[in-house]
Amino acid sequence: MKKVINQPNNVIEDMVKGMALANEAQWQRIEGTNVIRRKELSPGKVGIVSGGGSGHEPAHAGYVGKGMLDAAVVGEVFTSPTPDQIFEAIKAVDQGNGVLLVVKNYTGDVLNFEMAGELAEAEGIRVEQVVVSDDIAVKDSDNTIGRRGVAGTVFVHKTAGAKAEQGASLDEVKASAEKTITQVRSMGMALSPCIVPDAGKPSFHLEEDEMEIGIGIHGEAGTERKKIASAQEIAEELTNHILEDSGLSAGDEVVVMINGMGSTPEMELFIVNGHVNDLLNEKNISIHDTYVGEFMTSLEMAGFSITLLKVDTEIKQLLAEASEAVAFRV
Amino acid sequence: MKKVINQPNNVIEDMVKGMALANEAQWQRIEGTNVIRRKELSPGKVGIVSGGGSGHEPAHAGYVGKGMLDAAVVGEVFTSPTPDQIFEAIKAVDQGNGVLLVVKNYTGDVLNFEMAGELAEAEGIRVEQVVVSDDIAVKDSDNTIGRRGVAGTVFVHKTAGAKAEQGASLDEVKASAEKTITQVRSMGMALSPCIVPDAGKPSFHLEEDEMEIGIGIHGEAGTERKKIASAQEIAEELTNHILEDSGLSAGDEVVVMINGMGSTPEMELFIVNGHVNDLLNEKNISIHDTYVGEFMTSLEMAGFSITLLKVDTEIKQLLAEASEAVAFRV
Repeated sequence: MKKVINQPNNVIEDMVKGMALANEAQWQRIEGTNVIRRKELSPGKVGIVSGGGSGHEPAHAGYVGKGMLDAAVVGEVFTSPTPDQIFEAIKAVDQGNGVLLVVKNYTGDVLNFEMAGELAEAEGIRVEQVVVSDDIAVKDSDNTIGRRGVAGTVFVHKTAGAKAEQGASLDEVKASAEKTITQVRSMGMALSPCIVPDAGKPSFHLEEDEMEIGIGIHGEAGTERKKIASAQEIAEELTNHILEDSGLSAGDEVVVMINGMGSTPEMELFIVNGHVNDLLNEKNISIHDTYVGEFMTSLEMAGFSITLLKVDTEIKQLLAEASEAVAFRV
Repeated sequence: MKKVINQPNNVIEDMVKGMALANEAQWQRIEGTNVIRRKELSPGKVGIVSGGGSGHEPAHAGYVGKGMLDAAVVGEVFTSPTPDQIFEAIKAVDQGNGVLLVVKNYTGDVLNFEMAGELAEAEGIRVEQVVVSDDIAVKDSDNTIGRRGVAGTVFVHKTAGAKAEQGASLDEVKASAEKTITQVRSMGMALSPCIVPDAGKPSFHLEEDEMEIGIGIHGEAGTERKKIASAQEIAEELTNHILEDSGLSAGDEVVVMINGMGSTPEMELFIVNGHVNDLLNEKNISIHDTYVGEFMTSLEMAGFSITLLKVDTEIKQLLAEASEAVAFRV
């Protein structure tokens, strides 16, 4: 295992410490927790909390900032944060108008966020929860009932955050988040595995000429393992799966995200973007905007995912609102 | 070689195509070239052009945008762009008040940018050039006379770009860029090599327990190859080298950049940041701001670099000015 770390069992404490120091003007670590919160909240706003296992940076702390999340709860590597930590985040950002929890669909996360929500409601804080399940590759997995939540989650952070910043009620913010969830689809692939520091060895093995299609952001099994194809073939295969599943068709308008899984050079992401663009043009699906970069990673896994978000006037407006989140500045 | 590409000899064409489509509101490819330029220039402004070999993305196209570069010239992988391409960029962004070229110190880049500047001057365009040489690891190398230009270049883009946006003259913009160059120092390390697509094999070899200190962004030899140390030890070693070289001392104020080389998880960069912070605090050097992420990569090389920029009132103001560049939004 080649990593720039100290003790493998201390990576989260070391990371959260360095994180809080990286963006001091905006971020604040809630003392005694692994929660990164906005230093100053927008007064009276509905709170937005997300989080999950770490190893997906910049998710989710990178999305904490005016216009997106108010707090991100950092779990151990690929492990849900505990309910007490999530509860601390909820208490810190509630301003009397309730808190929306944005959760990626993994069994541990869903249970722990739900439990934290119940703890908060017992103290009189109104809490609602939305669950993102944008990964169309597989239905159910080792750690999921239903589809997994992956890079599309970032768009949910953005639309919910913008809606809350506009002064909307908790129900309205939840409705915008749910609309985004309904309209977003993703699918990924990998060329090489990641290494969880505590495990010290790769999470799976691929031969030198193999790739895995449909892989999850923790290296969970995908739909097919086969010989590496060209960028064009891979991009078209993933995009076509998303188009079939979503029912997107000529005349629809989408936002595209090409997300690197951790060690894929941006050069390759741009190459993929060109092919996704060509295919969507061919099908007369218009592209409102494109995001290329690392948004939801899987430690040092090589690979990428494609996300398509179908947009309407409301979603376009919410995406265009200002965001001060360090990993998604608008 | 595991890469998401098509033909290895076509990666630049494929990338530049996908790049131009990724950020259409702001970027425009100059037809028939590998130059990414701002779609709309700020009227009357001094032009700022940079570029170099590709494989360092987001450098340099990611820094094209209002408040930073007006154009970036994209060379083949790790290969200087040709003078004619640079000349096209200069012509496209000159508005009668001259153009500053920001060049990383590699022999090929310096020669080709100089030659392009001469072509432009022959057509009556005033051109000045600054050369960034922030890498303190080695003096001279296979492809450099003097020190190499690495991640500190991004700060030169930022200060020169902000100064130009304020309406400063070419001489004033050049002076701000040169001050930044004088005050910035970097040093890097690697855990694993990168693979140039056309070569198809790793650029060097490190044993499973080895790292290389002082490596360059093309995998050029560093100062020492040794057993992997802890994040704290590596962070302190690099920071101490920079402090010794720069003469920074108690009471000075710096901006810190922790730059990932391509496949280093952000988790590890944050861990390094914590240790750099501790060491600077210990020495009573105050930290004005911190940037953690991928700013100047080396394809899929694993490793990172530390950059310290000594700041004064002028540099702090220039860093704080708005930037719309996709990889450095302020």
